[in-house]
Order: sequence, then structure tokens, then C-alpha cells
Amino acid sequence: MKKEKNGGKGYKLRIISLGGLGEVGKNMTVIEYGNDIVVVDAGMGFPDKDMPGVDLVMPDISYLVKNADKIRGILITHGHEDHIGAVPYLLHQINVPIYGTRLSLGIIEGKLDEDPPEYYPELYTVEAGDVINLGAMKAEFIHVNHSIADACAISIKTPVGVVFHTGDFKLDVSPIDDKMIDLTRIGEIGKAGVEVLLCESTNAERAGFTPSERTVGSSLERIFAQYEDRRLIIATFSSNVHRVQQIINASARHGRKVAVLGRSMVNILGAALELGYMELPDGVLIDLADIRRYKPNEITLITTGSQGEPMSALYRIAFGAHDKIKINPNDVVVLSSSAIPGNEKLVGSIINALVQNGVKVVHDSTEEVHVSGHACREELKLMMALTRPKYFVPIHGEARHLNANRELAEFMGIPSENIFISEIGKVLEIDKKSAGFNGTVPAGNVLVDGAGIGDIGNVVLRDRKHLSEEGLVIVVATVDTRDRYLISGPDIVSRGFVYVKESEELMQRAKAVAEGAIERSLKKKSVDSYELKDAIRDDLAKFIYKETKRKPMILPVIMNI
Amino acid sequence: MKKEKNGGKGYKLRIISLGGLGEVGKNMTVIEYGNDIVVVDAGMGFPDKDMPGVDLVMPDISYLVKNADKIRGILITHGHEDHIGAVPYLLHQINVPIYGTRLSLGIIEGKLDEDPPEYYPELYTVEAGDVINLGAMKAEFIHVNHSIADACAISIKTPVGVVFHTGDFKLDVSPIDDKMIDLTRIGEIGKAGVEVLLCESTNAERAGFTPSERTVGSSLERIFAQYEDRRLIIATFSSNVHRVQQIINASARHGRKVAVLGRSMVNILGAALELGYMELPDGVLIDLADIRRYKPNEITLITTGSQGEPMSALYRIAFGAHDKIKINPNDVVVLSSSAIPGNEKLVGSIINALVQNGVKVVHDSTEEVHVSGHACREELKLMMALTRPKYFVPIHGEARHLNANRELAEFMGIPSENIFISEIGKVLEIDKKSAGFNGTVPAGNVLVDGAGIGDIGNVVLRDRKHLSEEGLVIVVATVDTRDRYLISGPDIVSRGFVYVKESEELMQRAKAVAEGAIERSLKKKSVDSYELKDAIRDDLAKFIYKETKRKPMILPVIMNI
Repeated sequence: MKKEKNGGKGYKLRIISLGGLGEVGKNMTVIEYGNDIVVVDAGMGFPDKDMPGVDLVMPDISYLVKNADKIRGILITHGHEDHIGAVPYLLHQINVPIYGTRLSLGIIEGKLDEDPPEYYPELYTVEAGDVINLGAMKAEFIHVNHSIADACAISIKTPVGVVFHTGDFKLDVSPIDDKMIDLTRIGEIGKAGVEVLLCESTNAERAGFTPSERTVGSSLERIFAQYEDRRLIIATFSSNVHRVQQIINASARHGRKVAVLGRSMVNILGAALELGYMELPDGVLIDLADIRRYKPNEITLITTGSQGEPMSALYRIAFGAHDKIKINPNDVVVLSSSAIPGNEKLVGSIINALVQNGVKVVHDSTEEVHVSGHACREELKLMMALTRPKYFVPIHGEARHLNANRELAEFMGIPSENIFISEIGKVLEIDKKSAGFNGTVPAGNVLVDGAGIGDIGNVVLRDRKHLSEEGLVIVVATVDTRDRYLISGPDIVSRGFVYVKESEELMQRAKAVAEGAIERSLKKKSVDSYELKDAIRDDLAKFIYKETKRKPMILPVIMNI
Repeated sequence: MKKEKNGGKGYKLRIISLGGLGEVGKNMTVIEYGNDIVVVDAGMGFPDKDMPGVDLVMPDISYLVKNADKIRGILITHGHEDHIGAVPYLLHQINVPIYGTRLSLGIIEGKLDEDPPEYYPELYTVEAGDVINLGAMKAEFIHVNHSIADACAISIKTPVGVVFHTGDFKLDVSPIDDKMIDLTRIGEIGKAGVEVLLCESTNAERAGFTPSERTVGSSLERIFAQYEDRRLIIATFSSNVHRVQQIINASARHGRKVAVLGRSMVNILGAALELGYMELPDGVLIDLADIRRYKPNEITLITTGSQGEPMSALYRIAFGAHDKIKINPNDVVVLSSSAIPGNEKLVGSIINALVQNGVKVVHDSTEEVHVSGHACREELKLMMALTRPKYFVPIHGEARHLNANRELAEFMGIPSENIFISEIGKVLEIDKKSAGFNGTVPAGNVLVDGAGIGDIGNVVLRDRKHLSEEGLVIVVATVDTRDRYLISGPDIVSRGFVYVKESEELMQRAKAVAEGAIERSLKKKSVDSYELKDAIRDDLAKFIYKETKRKPMILPVIMNI
């Protein structure tokens, strides 16, 4: 790194997002000063529809690998996958200490047990209020409200000034654990002076304030009363321990036992209980195997699958593929969640499947059974008003959300020239006098498919998309290219193209076209496999498009003898 | 058809949905009495994510083809694609007269010009209030409000009683054409007695009333005032002529000229003007080529593409691929629409692309720039209260919507046993005494991909999905199966699987595995191609899954010499 003079006071502050800007999540922010690097979060992303077959998306961390000796710590704001999911991936490559609250680290430990890393890290438990020394920087964790317990914002004091990273947050004046976001401390930090506010943008298009988590409790109370004679199956995010707590409390009040379905629900419930994030009324939790000892209306099932995930417990229940739970028209299913953009159709298919089986489904378009964990416009403005930053950098969102957050900052009086919408890998440099973008570092998506990490790229994805939309025609021929004659074939095999049985005549003609192309090429003085393949591909593509208006992938395979 | 005695009065009334129940649209209802069939609508559907590469979905009309001589007419409620899109497909197979209002028939004529049918039908223009004799049945068209002009409900008098088909409708007390839904006539028909109400269900989950189309006009007025110094690009559904009219009116009031982009927008605007459904202030409409004669803030562009369709004008504009319109940060794009479920991501990608180019985007999550064309819960209840039907059949919707509509009907006092949620092809039989399901007729989806109609089926779709998610490995070998030796190969080709360059070693080992499978099989006393292929497929699948945790499609091709 080049050492730049900054009014005689040292280095420039560098802020780099390795994720969290764009469509696939994987939040990760690098804050760098001189020989010290602090990383906030290490999240993974989820593939979008242009990545068929991809399971997960990791951030490209080659910049961190290269500068591993400078990294003083990974600071975790909270335990959601898009903030911690890349921790095992990171620890396969570099050894760095990790700081987070108890719940965040509890969830990370669970992940490391499942996928033991090359380097088992030092894990440091922090509490809101703690200040950590990280080389030339100091980080303070500040309590915020969010849809997972023990979430924090992080204020990082650097020689250039304070960088305030909001993490994901909302304002909840009546949270389930009675711990409201620490507005006072945020205001104190703001009064002392904030150089840069890195502010989440998820709900920057939504007006007003996000309702309190407690409003869901009121809805649940109504639903428990209304359906007191029926079995309740409630799906929600496993990490939302306050939501799960509210479901358990309502169950206990209404004399129901609770059983839990889905691996992540069982895991997180276990961790939350062990770490004291949840309280269990005596005897309310029972084993799934024991539910048959009770009447249906004495049972609440809490399950994963609220996003319609095809391997989840709820999906299997809805489509009759769960080995322990069979639904019946006396069941009520509550989706205590909202569909993440892109999952609407999947969630809809679960609702339809349940309804077709006569099950009553309650979801967030008919009842207030879910609230967001993210700050709406008024809360974002409140954050800006308390921190009063010199520079504003919207993070965590698609372009539309970052831009909406920028408009809020302008409304709050932050000059346009002090607002920076960054891109993944782009370096924002700040010194006491000015701020601006300067260069980039390697950054992007590392795609995970099955056991393979990074062996899927644009070519593979483009092929998959082509195959999925148009199918495939394979032409195989054995030729003697030296003496230039066709020994056997061409044979034609197709997949995903047309019904072969109903298109026999088309396939016969395609075969003749391929044969024509081969014979024509072999008449030339000399011919190699590439020319042969090109001739087959060209002729066949033209023929098939003319006949069917389709463009399947055409794969000639020439065997030379 | 079997002739069933019905209290000495003749046949049973049969009601069959050939579409409109489920996820892909294509609304089509068959109403049959004795030797007479009346069909309400002939819509097409759009593929969902499980149909990669499929362009359109048509209803299976083999039941109509078989009973063509009985069909007295196709009655069109309104001119949306999901109600008229299958008309050309139908007319390629059978010759039937078509009845509809002027705009509906105008749009159908346009489609028939583009895709001339085997049988050019008799087209009968009707107006709301007209009564048509159709064999033993009589149909009356009744004016309703919807997001296209000249929409109708249809009341069909049969010997068993009146079947009232709502079409798609909403209540708009202040519609743009000043023609409110004819509640009076609906009430009169209700008082005289309705046997069956076929009622649309699209918004049956939404509380309250749908706002008037005129509220969009107020929003547009605000937007035109706020951005008076900038060019406006407004995307909406081309068929919503009242929306387009409001945009034109606002433009004229604010001294702007209007140019139109997108083939369907140009076509429908032309038809609507010709048929008198729109009024054009003098000189307001200009040719797209002439926009350079005006300042940007003197121009409104109206465009298609509000659903994010990848070939649409707006998509090409957003991604810099439009040859005539280049966007700049002084443009304001208004999406006067809402994303149809499943299109959220596509619409989002357009918003992101525009925002990244500095364009201000106004859409329905930030301003009231769109209203639905469908009845919400209170309007559906109003329809039930006016028609007071004996039997209730929810139509037009997914299972969740049909079920929500059923709950509304129960709330309105219709006995549960008189409510019938049908399925595609299921026959509802009604006589003076009772009603119930009795058998099915052939029904389903006919998939259209390119020029091929019906040659794509489940096997092809399953292959496409498999290919798209896991890719493909082809193994080619030339063998002498008689003398049982391997002449050449095996060669391995893969697509959509892994980066071949980075996986050379894997591919070499895969080749060895395939060779081993072939050699082993050839050692047997006799061997045919099928056994060889099975051996290759089994061994290679195991090897690849073990190494990569993936399951690509494995395609062995054996050339016999």
C-alpha cells in the first residue's frame, strides 16, 4: 500500500465494500488505516435466477488473503447468514480473530463445528458498550434492535475520525427483551463527531416507522383465540428468537405444547436457550415424537420453511412428503414472515398446496403476523439526525435502495458531494480534508455448487441458461479425417428440445442435414475436426431455426479413427 | 353426451373451466346445456419458472374440438391476453362465431391479422345491454369497470337458471370514461334470480375497495408538477387505455408532447383512437423521430415494459440498448404498474439499472402511480349481495385466491355446500334440484416454444431443469459390440458443469472411470449398447457425485461399428 501524506498525520482512511452492494447480500466492509485492517461482517449471499444450480455465493476475499497480516479482527454485527455465512469460507484461507456478541458467536461456533476450518479462530465475546483495540483503530459495539437478538452497530474510531457502521437495525420502543436500541449512546457519539456513516438501506423506500416486534404478539394472541380448537403450525425465520419466544409464550398461555421442526430451528433454539436468550415456561417444549399424546388443539408446531425453501420442513409438510407430520383440514398454518424478493412464487406455491388440502393459511397479506427487522425512512432519518455525519455512505441494498437512502441523506441536509454510493471493490479514501473514490481492489462473487467452490463461472452459467431455455442437440460421427470418409453416424441425440417420438421426421431430416455438412467438408482437400464441427453446427442451427424457431445448443462430437 | 332426465325438463347444466384455475392464467369457461355450448373467453397463459424456454401456454381445447358442432359462440368479457390470447389458436382448429364489445374485437382483429387462422370467424360486435340468442341459452352483456375499457360481465340464461359470469371487474365510482359498472342491472338480474355466480378471485385476499383509476391521475398531476424541468418516461400496460389517456391529458395540460414506444403500445393506441376509446388533444402526439425538436422537459414518452419484459422498449432503454432513446440523469421514469407475481425481480433489475444511471424512478412502492383493475374483498361481497346466487363458483385465481373468495361467500351467507371450488377439466353439473361434480373432460396446458405447439412436455421440461441446475456430461465411444472391443474414445464433453480448464484432472479421471466401465462391460459374454450406457452412467454418476456433490445429466453415446 502506498503511504500517502495526510497533513503530516499519516495515512488515508480506506473503506471498501466486498459485498452488500447489489442483489445477492454477502455483507462485508473493509476499513483500513495504514497497516491495520478491520472487517465488519463476513456474510454469504444467495443465488439469483441467473445462477441456476448455484447453491451459495461467497465474497471474493482475495484482497483480505493478500493482506492477511494486517487484519486485526472480523467484527460481527449480528448472526444472520448474510453477515456471518462466509466465516467458515474465510477461515479456510486465513487465520483472524473474530469479535461478536454471545449469540452471534454461538451461531458461528455451530457453523464451525459443521464445517471445521483450516484455522480455528480466536473468538472474543463482546457486549454492547465494549471497546476493542484494533491496532490504530478502536471499535465500540452499540446495541440496536433487529430481527435477531443481540445485534449491534459498530463505531470505529480511526486517526482520521469516527466511522459509524449501523449494521442492520430498527427502532423498537417495546422490544421483547426490553432492550431498546441505544439511541443515547448513538447521540453521544454523534455529538463527539462522526466522520462517516455507513448506513443500511434495506427499507429506504418504505415510509414511516417499522412496527414493533410486539405487534406480532398481539396478532398471534388473536389467532390463538380464533383457532383454539385447531392445531397450529407456525413457520418463521429460525434466527428470530424473539418471534419464537412470542409463539412459545402464546402457546403456554393457551395451554398448548410446542414441538419444533427443521434442523436450523432446532439448532438455533438450542443455542438461544443455552445462552439465555429465551425463556421456556416449564414443560411447554415437547419432543416431536410425543405430539400424538396430545389433542391437535393442544399442539403448536414451530417450523422452518417460511421462504418456501424446497428442502424445508414446511415445504415437505405442504406437499405431503414429511415423514412425521401429515396435514389435515383442521390445521391452521401461520406464515410469520414475508417473502424475500424473488421467493414470492415459492411461498405462493406452498400456500396453494396447503389451501388445496383444505388447510387454513394465515399470512402477512391478510394479518399482521410479521414485521420487518429493518429501519424505514423515518428511522433512517433519525439515525442520520443522531450521528450527524460529515460523509454518508449507504450500504446493504440494491442500487434502488442505496439511492433512496441517498435521497434521505440529502433531505437531512448532508451535502450531495459528501454522499458516496460505492460499488463492490471500490476504494473510498478519506483524510481530514477530503474524501473520494480512488481505485479498486479485487472483488466479486465466488459461486458454490455442491462441493465445488469457484469452479462455476459466467461461461458455465451461460451454458446452463441456454440449455434450460432451448435444450440440446448432440451430433456424433466417427470419421477418418486422414482419408476423409465417414465411418459411422452421424447419430443425433437431443435433450430438453422436443418430444423425440413426435418429431421423428424432424430428427431424420436433421440427421440428413448433418450428414450433408460432413460429406461436403470431407470433400475438401484437408479437413480437421474443428472445421467439421463448425460445418455441422452452422447447417444444423439454420435448419432447426427454420423448422422450429428455436436455437438449441448444438454439440457436434467427432470421433477420429 | 348422455341425456339425463331432470324433472322432465331436459338436460343438466354443465360448467367446465378449461383454464383460469391455477397459476398460468388462460381463462376459459365452458357452459353447456344439452346440444348447446357457450364459451366465455379464450385466454392464453404465461409460463412459470418450471417451464424454462416456454414462450406461451394455451389451454387444451380438445373437448371443444370434439364438440365443435355444439358451440354457439365464444363470448369475450374483455380484451386482455389472458382472456383473448388463445383465440387464434382456437380458430386454427375450429370455426366458431365470436361475440364481444368493440375494443375486444378490435384487439382480436389485430391478432388475426398477424396470425391468420385456418377459419376466419364471424365477429359480432355487442354493446353492454345486448342480449344474444345462443341455442337454448341467451347471453346478456353487462358493463363493468376494469383496467381495460369496454369490459363486461355476462349473464347467461339457461333452462336450469341464470349463470352470472363476472369476468374481471372492479367498482369505480369515478371512472375515466364516466361509465360506472352497471350495478343497477346486476341488482335486477339478482332480484330475478341467479342460479350460479362465477366470480373472479384475483384480489380476494385484499381488504377494502380498490381505488378509482382517477387517483392515479392525481398522482400523475403531482409528478408532472414536481418534475416540470425534466423529461418524463412513463411505462404502463398498453391495454390500459384510460391510464394512457390520463398520461396524455396530464402532458397536454403541462405543455408536453407525447411520443409512444413499443409495438403493442403503438398498436393498441392506434386501435383505441380509431374506435373512439381515446381523445387526443390537438397536436399533442408526435412521432418518436421528432422528439429532438423539443426540449426534454417538453416531452413525455409512453412505453411498454412495465413488467420488465426483456424485449420491451423500457428494458432496452434501461440497459442502454435502445437505438432511439438514450437515458440521462435528467430523466424521470415512472412505472405506472405493479409487478405481476413472479416478475418482481425483473422489474427490480430495471429499476436498479435506471438508478445506477442516475435516473429518478417513481414506482408504486413510493407513490400511488398504479391501481388494480380487480375487485377487493368489499367489492366481491357487493357483487355477491347484488346477485344473491344459489351456487357460488370462484374462478380466476390460484388456489389461495379461490379459497379466500369461498370464505367471503360463506361470510355473505351462501351455504358451504353450495360453494364449488373446481379444477381445470372438472365438470360441475347442476339441475333444478341439486349441484355437484361429475367427471372430467380433457384439459391442461399446451406449451408453445418458438414455432412448436404442444411438442414440449413434462419430459422435455424436466430435462431442461436438470440441465440448467447441474449441467451435462457427454461420453462418446466407438465400440465393436460384436467382437467386443473399444475402437476409439471414450471422449468426454461437458457443458454447464464446471470450468473445464480448471478441472482437467477431474475430467481425466472421469475418462478413466468411463473407460473402466466400458472395458468391464465388454468382457461379458455379450453386450448391447443399452448395457454399455447404463454401466457408463452408473459409474460416472457415482464418481462425479463423490468428487463434486453434483449430479449433472450424463449422456453416454455409443457408436457401433
